[in-house]
Amino acid sequence: MNDIQPGFTGSPLDRVDHLRRDPQGVAELQASLSARLLLLDGLDPIPSDDGGLSWGSLAEAPDGAELALLGLIEGKPRFVALNGRSSAGPARGTAVWRMLEYLPSADAATYAAARSLVDWHARHRFCANCGVATTPTNAGWARKCGTCHAEHFPRTDPVVIMLAEHEGRVLVGRQPGFPPGFYSALAGFIEVGESIEEAVARELREEAGVRATSVRYLASQPWPFPSSLMIACVAPVESDALTIDANELEDAMWVTRDDVAAALAGDPHARFTGPPRFAIANTLFRRWLAG
Amino acid sequence: MNDIQPGFTGSPLDRVDHLRRDPQGVAELQASLSARLLLLDGLDPIPSDDGGLSWGSLAEAPDGAELALLGLIEGKPRFVALNGRSSAGPARGTAVWRMLEYLPSADAATYAAARSLVDWHARHRFCANCGVATTPTNAGWARKCGTCHAEHFPRTDPVVIMLAEHEGRVLVGRQPGFPPGFYSALAGFIEVGESIEEAVARELREEAGVRATSVRYLASQPWPFPSSLMIACVAPVESDALTIDANELEDAMWVTRDDVAAALAGDPHARFTGPPRFAIANTLFRRWLAG
Repeated sequence: MNDIQPGFTGSPLDRVDHLRRDPQGVAELQASLSARLLLLDGLDPIPSDDGGLSWGSLAEAPDGAELALLGLIEGKPRFVALNGRSSAGPARGTAVWRMLEYLPSADAATYAAARSLVDWHARHRFCANCGVATTPTNAGWARKCGTCHAEHFPRTDPVVIMLAEHEGRVLVGRQPGFPPGFYSALAGFIEVGESIEEAVARELREEAGVRATSVRYLASQPWPFPSSLMIACVAPVESDALTIDANELEDAMWVTRDDVAAALAGDPHARFTGPPRFAIANTLFRRWLAG
Repeated sequence: MNDIQPGFTGSPLDRVDHLRRDPQGVAELQASLSARLLLLDGLDPIPSDDGGLSWGSLAEAPDGAELALLGLIEGKPRFVALNGRSSAGPARGTAVWRMLEYLPSADAATYAAARSLVDWHARHRFCANCGVATTPTNAGWARKCGTCHAEHFPRTDPVVIMLAEHEGRVLVGRQPGFPPGFYSALAGFIEVGESIEEAVARELREEAGVRATSVRYLASQPWPFPSSLMIACVAPVESDALTIDANELEDAMWVTRDDVAAALAGDPHARFTGPPRFAIANTLFRRWLAG
């Protein structure tokens, strides 16, 4: 099972939640000689000589940047600077994706938490309830409004990603922006007032016109672009007749176990190019093959 | 299985996502004689004569209130007024809870979507990115900022709720504010950078000092107070020795299958009072007993 653990999971981080509302405890950790700062280039990781994340001293934080307490790793307090960088604006480069192919999985998981947190602060500097500027609190795990006293917490958007299944084949699709030949599982945000199972059924109906008869949960992962919780499922459907929503999908097709295995193996003759190892669609394909 | 469907699921609502970005299509639905408005008292449902939700004509919306398109039920367009009421402020009364005990489950599910949507708009009138007032868009399923052009979508917070399991018994706990005798499954918000499985393990460790050896997903539901996605799991743990976090739990105890069955049956001699049928903790207990 170990080779099909989802990407961005397995961080050694102890989040020490109980310390976050203890400003004196956090100050002591900040003053500790063992405290380490996660070094980022904007929102991107900086590979160290051994290929993992780079950690520096707290003195390396940008002037005036607030620090968020990620937690403890190997007993050492770990911080990240809220450097004001956000994922809004021009599309991200591909450098971070190439790096994620090689970053050790435990480091990628720690990075995911840090990236989502830094980005959330940058995009949520004002109170959604009353419009005034807010300030970080709870060691960087919340923002508070001094005017209306609302507390705001980092946002995590649940997303379903699923394989429709029919007579031993599963449905893969490609969005208009995908690289040539690339196909993946269908996906969509869970809306208010929906269960996981209802969102899976709705997305399959909307995007591909297929009707789920049941939904089986398989795995989950955090996805830090910017901050989703990916929930992977398999759903047997009534029929393989497709009605594609052209706004969502450029193409969709049914693929066999052999097709999926070839795509995952990187076979140049595979019917499609599959998702990278750190994406849960990859885990979903592997677990479907294994189960 | 039907009697252990989670509460707030099973709405007949067709969300017609493809229409939301089509202002003319939405205007046509609003002008339709069959359009219906969900009637609310603040954020609470208003029971109709037959015990379900009350629907009126669009003319019954408060003056100047924007309307959100919930979707279609029985082919009729269904709207709700964004009436500015929010769940912030004084604690909610118990009236809505008593009503939910009797509301048909399909109606409760439609109500959950509407309540979370109305409440979200009321608490997110300003742009978190730049602080200016935003306006509803996408037929009430988003807000847009005219200044920085950020789009904001209704928020859904994923929460894990879980039964630690050890030698045939499961762990129940009570928070300080619970009614006398009431116990339920432990629960907590999933944080950025965590999978469902990691959040379950962390919460059990933090709140009760028990270590999960695996995590099994069982069910999910939307929870409209104000807007969570509840994800119910069972997690076998290494030992039944407890270390309770007194900030989170007033008490916790291991209970047997008979204890749980007695609580669900409302037995006056049960060791504890269990959660109401519409709470997923109830579903979780039932599925654990059934499985």
